[in-house]
Amino acid sequence: MGYARPIRLGMVGGGAGAFIGDVHRIASRIDGDFDLIAGALSSTADRAQASGRALGLAPDRIYDDFKVMAMREARLKDGIEAVTIVTPNHMHFPAAREFLKRGIHVICDKPLSSNLRDAKKLLEAAEKSNALFVLTHNYTGYPMVRQAREMVSKGDIGDIRVVQAEYPQDWLTEAEELQDNKQAEWRTDPARSGVGGSIGDIGTHAFNLLSFVTGLETESLAADLQSFVPGRRLDDNAHTMLRFEGGARGMLWSSQVAPGNENALRLRVYGSKGGLEWAQEDPNYLWYTPFGEAKRLITRGGVAANSVAARVSRTPGGHPEGYLEGFANIYAEAAKAIRGRQAGQKTDPEVVYPTVYDGVRGVAFIEACVASSNRNAAWVKF
Amino acid sequence: MGYARPIRLGMVGGGAGAFIGDVHRIASRIDGDFDLIAGALSSTADRAQASGRALGLAPDRIYDDFKVMAMREARLKDGIEAVTIVTPNHMHFPAAREFLKRGIHVICDKPLSSNLRDAKKLLEAAEKSNALFVLTHNYTGYPMVRQAREMVSKGDIGDIRVVQAEYPQDWLTEAEELQDNKQAEWRTDPARSGVGGSIGDIGTHAFNLLSFVTGLETESLAADLQSFVPGRRLDDNAHTMLRFEGGARGMLWSSQVAPGNENALRLRVYGSKGGLEWAQEDPNYLWYTPFGEAKRLITRGGVAANSVAARVSRTPGGHPEGYLEGFANIYAEAAKAIRGRQAGQKTDPEVVYPTVYDGVRGVAFIEACVASSNRNAAWVKF
Amino acid sequence: MGYARPIRLGMVGGGAGAFIGDVHRIASRIDGDFDLIAGALSSTADRAQASGRALGLAPDRIYDDFKVMAMREARLKDGIEAVTIVTPNHMHFPAAREFLKRGIHVICDKPLSSNLRDAKKLLEAAEKSNALFVLTHNYTGYPMVRQAREMVSKGDIGDIRVVQAEYPQDWLTEAEELQDNKQAEWRTDPARSGVGGSIGDIGTHAFNLLSFVTGLETESLAADLQSFVPGRRLDDNAHTMLRFEGGARGMLWSSQVAPGNENALRLRVYGSKGGLEWAQEDPNYLWYTPFGEAKRLITRGGVAANSVAARVSRTPGGHPEGYLEGFANIYAEAAKAIRGRQAGQKTDPEVVYPTVYDGVRGVAFIEACVASSNRNAAWVKF
Amino acid sequence: MGYARPIRLGMVGGGAGAFIGDVHRIASRIDGDFDLIAGALSSTADRAQASGRALGLAPDRIYDDFKVMAMREARLKDGIEAVTIVTPNHMHFPAAREFLKRGIHVICDKPLSSNLRDAKKLLEAAEKSNALFVLTHNYTGYPMVRQAREMVSKGDIGDIRVVQAEYPQDWLTEAEELQDNKQAEWRTDPARSGVGGSIGDIGTHAFNLLSFVTGLETESLAADLQSFVPGRRLDDNAHTMLRFEGGARGMLWSSQVAPGNENALRLRVYGSKGGLEWAQEDPNYLWYTPFGEAKRLITRGGVAANSVAARVSRTPGGHPEGYLEGFANIYAEAAKAIRGRQAGQKTDPEVVYPTVYDGVRGVAFIEACVASSNRNAAWVKF
Repeated sequence: MGYARPIRLGMVGGGAGAFIGDVHRIASRIDGDFDLIAGALSSTADRAQASGRALGLAPDRIYDDFKVMAMREARLKDGIEAVTIVTPNHMHFPAAREFLKRGIHVICDKPLSSNLRDAKKLLEAAEKSNALFVLTHNYTGYPMVRQAREMVSKGDIGDIRVVQAEYPQDWLTEAEELQDNKQAEWRTDPARSGVGGSIGDIGTHAFNLLSFVTGLETESLAADLQSFVPGRRLDDNAHTMLRFEGGARGMLWSSQVAPGNENALRLRVYGSKGGLEWAQEDPNYLWYTPFGEAKRLITRGGVAANSVAARVSRTPGGHPEGYLEGFANIYAEAAKAIRGRQAGQKTDPEVVYPTVYDGVRGVAFIEACVASSNRNAAWVKF
Repeated sequence: MGYARPIRLGMVGGGAGAFIGDVHRIASRIDGDFDLIAGALSSTADRAQASGRALGLAPDRIYDDFKVMAMREARLKDGIEAVTIVTPNHMHFPAAREFLKRGIHVICDKPLSSNLRDAKKLLEAAEKSNALFVLTHNYTGYPMVRQAREMVSKGDIGDIRVVQAEYPQDWLTEAEELQDNKQAEWRTDPARSGVGGSIGDIGTHAFNLLSFVTGLETESLAADLQSFVPGRRLDDNAHTMLRFEGGARGMLWSSQVAPGNENALRLRVYGSKGGLEWAQEDPNYLWYTPFGEAKRLITRGGVAANSVAARVSRTPGGHPEGYLEGFANIYAEAAKAIRGRQAGQKTDPEVVYPTVYDGVRGVAFIEACVASSNRNAAWVKF
Repeated sequence: MGYARPIRLGMVGGGAGAFIGDVHRIASRIDGDFDLIAGALSSTADRAQASGRALGLAPDRIYDDFKVMAMREARLKDGIEAVTIVTPNHMHFPAAREFLKRGIHVICDKPLSSNLRDAKKLLEAAEKSNALFVLTHNYTGYPMVRQAREMVSKGDIGDIRVVQAEYPQDWLTEAEELQDNKQAEWRTDPARSGVGGSIGDIGTHAFNLLSFVTGLETESLAADLQSFVPGRRLDDNAHTMLRFEGGARGMLWSSQVAPGNENALRLRVYGSKGGLEWAQEDPNYLWYTPFGEAKRLITRGGVAANSVAARVSRTPGGHPEGYLEGFANIYAEAAKAIRGRQAGQKTDPEVVYPTVYDGVRGVAFIEACVASSNRNAAWVKF
Repeated sequence: MGYARPIRLGMVGGGAGAFIGDVHRIASRIDGDFDLIAGALSSTADRAQASGRALGLAPDRIYDDFKVMAMREARLKDGIEAVTIVTPNHMHFPAAREFLKRGIHVICDKPLSSNLRDAKKLLEAAEKSNALFVLTHNYTGYPMVRQAREMVSKGDIGDIRVVQAEYPQDWLTEAEELQDNKQAEWRTDPARSGVGGSIGDIGTHAFNLLSFVTGLETESLAADLQSFVPGRRLDDNAHTMLRFEGGARGMLWSSQVAPGNENALRLRVYGSKGGLEWAQEDPNYLWYTPFGEAKRLITRGGVAANSVAARVSRTPGGHPEGYLEGFANIYAEAAKAIRGRQAGQKTDPEVVYPTVYDGVRGVAFIEACVASSNRNAAWVKF
């Protein structure tokens, strides 16, 4: 990993205090593939400057307007080659568009946008651009998730019948958005987040994960969304039933009001020949249960890890990797794809990252859930 | 526990080879409260005799017709005082009726009956009778389930918002019913089981458990039932969304085609102040997660077990109790209720067991799930 | 199981309030193999009477002197055929002797005696007697322990190299013996317990378990015993290193002052080809780790359980069995052995229970540990 | 974290294929505190060049002799400010000496040296130097380890009585050193590793960890070392009993022949008021068991994490951090200490990292274990 010249990176959003900005910066550094040299870290001039200086950016590479940044960086000889977008959801589209049209590769936080209209425009922009678009559905970066996907694809569990996905958290159990918690404020604000609350913030992750691992196409869904905390404007709990093409069925639960659950994304897949179970909070383990045999615990880096998992592992078994390493794998894949593109090569088929198409599907999922819930959880075609 | 004169017990069904017959017999013996002295263990004369003799029953107390047994035992001076019914579902009603009308207490396996019509007739029979009717929803006998119920009722987790119940198994992953497996045969046969497959056999357990612990009344439900194994006549997987009176919501999953799951009944309940999680396969543990505090692991017999749990525990913490002890607790409660009734006393309020009303609710649940599924998972009032 | 005429059983010790008395009574009842009809439950006449009556014993079968009981029961036509001895340790030998010499089978709690001298006399008495002597090292009754032993014996883990045994508890973390806790009083009293505290009460269990599973003979040991609670007269924590014949090595830790540990007996065995791990508090699971392959979780009653485990299981996988069922397996084996003896047959080789020889080894282990500790943890031949 | 000018870093050892070199490089990058600009990555000129170029080092900053590197870099205006030493053990001392005497800060892998003589000379060199010496006992960097240490120090578990430390692995179960495995070769070679095998490679980690968390000083120890694999020249399994000043006792087990254990470092500490348990493979969890209360699961980043843990955490609860983040915390502490030293400030007391003194203690521990084992596990003063 790493060792080639680092790719020059910019960032939009992610000023001081934004959890996800730090995560992206660390993820971009782990393998030495990127060098953060410019940023529009805030749209407030003062905060933009303070955040940029704290990060050691050169003063003339600190912006408070992503459009200005895109224009100027595109003209600089040593301008950024890629940009990370970590703003609230509603700004993903306008920001991404500016960079894509100038040929600057975009690494964008999920969900793709705050509504399907923007998502489709962004898709169009991405298709027109020479630049790559990478969506950080970071949970697909975990080695054991990659292993599960490969095992499903090789038929290890037979034909898939049942998918159980869940993503409970508890941080919005009380009305955190009224307590001056910026994270809670924008994530419960339809203007900035879109129509989805828990279903948009984390339900999409679960949906993306199950699609990634199983390869199943969703045919229709029925969703029952709730806002349990008085005054909350978006759902904080969502129950969804899924029907997949080919006949498999699923359930998906997202919640931000389930006390005791920190970030408990979990996927279970059952087929005619076996099952697989994975939990994000213990990501180095994958349970594999071939029907009629003892359960097996596959460990990242361990004897039963396959080459697909090994490719995105940095340490041997028993040396746990976590959230940041999984996130860094998306950056590592992005770097490989960008370098391949720069070298005029076809992308290596083993390089895998979430694309703008996954992003559109994710926003469509959110809107379908809300539409279903508004119609008393009727089945909605996907 | 125990130490009073054992109650004279009979049994209908449960001949050699029937798993559940052995379970009831052990459960009835553990505390020394019952003495099995008569049985119509099979409707086939030869099997009835062989099974009865193997159990050490006196030859004149072995029957091959439960009606004859009910009539004769009711007349004997030392006739049975109670009877256990462990036949396939469709025989629960006719058998129970015979004993109830002769004042013999009935301990009956779940579900109450194979259809709601029979369930209601059985309810009527039970209401008319002097005898008690106890339904062996055995999972309510586990000490940590009792503890959870008490904690919910005392408000430890606040107002309930979300209930997640699941009961996956894997033993019907393949077409076991074609392999000369008697258990599989009758459980997948509508004539003997009723309209529910997995939803009737185990979904009712999950439904009973969540109702028992939370005290919530179900308002409506939407269910999506599947038969994944070719040729299977009843559902082997069921996805259900629940709405409770007062606004709480739930999901319930039952499956008999989820490889790696032996008998994985699990309940999670989340309220405005905390959460509770319990898994049947590790029944001595109860997770309690008060919002804003570290998770706590409450153990059966341990320092944080409450008096309700202690009342139905036989051993100290760290000496695991299991399925049979939980089952035996239903028998122990039945014995207390029967002795109280015999002594003309009011039933002690701390004595708790599943009743015919729970049984009717269970059958109504099965039929509502099937009705919903038949209408494309539309919401059905409960 | 069961179904033959119950064996007539008596009990010495185990009056009201004695935890272990209840455990033995339940264990003897689970399979219907024994019928408790006589008892010298206490040496205090009043308590003996009260306890006997509470258990429903006939008044003339209640004794306050085990010697009188042994003499009289031996003469009765329907006298007891077997007796359970659950007194404090120092009374095991005198009580057992009385019954053995009258041909009454003895089921005796562990450790065999409070000192090696008594143990050897008891051995002699057992060898002279026609009656059987069964020691309730109950943890050998667990199905997954039996499975482990069979796997070791078949060579599944190759040549054993390392054994890690531990048995921590926490109930004596404070000076419980000064708080009117009878259990704590006699277990910390050298006159009643012998020279071992934690090493005698629970260390012997761990030692018996490791010997049972591995089949290894202990060559020598070095032990470092401590009494952490001020004023305590026996060890409450013991660290032991073991050397086995053939070169394997082990560690054994027993403690009654390890907060958070209820009854955490645990055994891990590693050989040249694989490993096995088992924990008493989660007894339905056995980890098997063949070197170079994924870890496997073997479950009691599950697909990978062997016939040796199945033979002593009562329920299918996922229906957890616990401490009482494991204990009952010792009684079930005792019943089989007694019936075989009564029928004049050779004991079936699959019938396995701890014998007086195991008991002597256990007491020798205790004394060796104390001797080593007294000599600054020098190696002591075993 | 980070954001100041990166510290210029060099590396000795860690050429292509060396697992630990990659680990150090990633750890040094995570927070952006260091910039690797020079290296003597191998003593073989070709390998040194190839490895240096692969890492993007400038050609004139690639060396094949650490002495030359130390001399030249010390003279350069933009020479390295710190160096990481990741050679086999016997080279730690000569390499560290060169840099220390030129005022270049040293970050050195453990154990400190291959023998106590070198360790003491290195101590002397470190004491004489203006430069800092940081030993990468990386497991002390885990947030939950820091939390445990703080809890012990605040008296949360009372006076410590018992310490159980273990570090089993399985990668040397077979004679890997004969299979052209470089890692196995030098780690089983006395000339390069010193007198300790498993006890030196991983036992020291366990010893360092227990000392770090408990603050206990070891008074004496008795060790029983084994080499189970035929032909192996150093121990591959070690059993140790420990006595601490003040009366606490401990056991420490290290093994590289325990199948199923990847890197299973684990620490359990029990005091008069409670217990703490931590396992390296699941590092985001800390069990806390106050005596007489329910067990509590403290999570990294969670509600019960203290400020000492939060200080070294990068992500919120439920976003698992792992081995690399723990390792990076040692680098982050080193960066803080180096910058403080450069600024002429006293080191912030909250900055904690393993020192040369810990290193000397570690080597003394290894030699004491070997000495004890050579004298039939006699007690050896520490």
